[in-house]
Amino acid sequence: MPKLDLDTIPQTNATGYPPEYAGAVEGRWYRRLGSASGLNEFGVSHVTLRPGAWSSQRHWHEGEDEFVVMLSGEAVLVDDEGEHVMRAGDCAAFPRGEANGHVLQNRGDADCVFVAVGRPSASDCHYPDIDMHLFEGQGFRRKDGSGFD
Amino acid sequence: MPKLDLDTIPQTNATGYPPEYAGAVEGRWYRRLGSASGLNEFGVSHVTLRPGAWSSQRHWHEGEDEFVVMLSGEAVLVDDEGEHVMRAGDCAAFPRGEANGHVLQNRGDADCVFVAVGRPSASDCHYPDIDMHLFEGQGFRRKDGSGFD
Repeated sequence: MPKLDLDTIPQTNATGYPPEYAGAVEGRWYRRLGSASGLNEFGVSHVTLRPGAWSSQRHWHEGEDEFVVMLSGEAVLVDDEGEHVMRAGDCAAFPRGEANGHVLQNRGDADCVFVAVGRPSASDCHYPDIDMHLFEGQGFRRKDGSGFD
Repeated sequence: MPKLDLDTIPQTNATGYPPEYAGAVEGRWYRRLGSASGLNEFGVSHVTLRPGAWSSQRHWHEGEDEFVVMLSGEAVLVDDEGEHVMRAGDCAAFPRGEANGHVLQNRGDADCVFVAVGRPSASDCHYPDIDMHLFEGQGFRRKDGSGFD
């Protein structure tokens, strides 16, 4: 049925990041609402960040738009322009190809929740703060192209 | 900048519905966040329903996925399966081609606010309750194909 029962949708904190960069997202618990409900034009993630958790490593996608709306709690959006507090109802948009790395960080002592919209990564993704790059079709590698091991 | 200042984005209650069906959405005030922020893979509308207002006439799209997340207040989601109260944090998904007409109705005495995601209509859209149909490339007409006038 169209109204979603979130409790019936599996929640995971899985990540494809290599171990040295995975700690930041260990407390990021998400549900894939789009695929669970039959949407295939865009993905929708329902994300809870535990205290200390980040939404991702700071990044920007060459080929995928992203949109975020906060539902509860508080996070800090960090991008090239500075830090911006995000609270329930606040929205942020990240057009594809705009070279402004972004991340939401939960710096408080309570969970925060947001919904993120965007297609799965199918293009290069840039990580300005760390020695990692998502190469189209090759997954995560160091910026020089060598693998993590 | 990625974080959106909603107050700077124009708000409108415009509709393409013919006058006999436009009354239901007169109290639907929305901002097009996606186009205002440079997104073009999907649209994002930030919608306030005044008391009595509907999100649309009850409808379903042949070719466009839709997703809704409530931000504040309360609305009733009406679809073929019945009525479902939607409150802050509740989500609903409407896969393209699924013949289950849906609408959010504000039956309370306070505003409600939600975000809706989906591409602009480029396919036929069905309105099970009224004598209207969106014909691909032709706009709104009566179900027999005749125009409104």
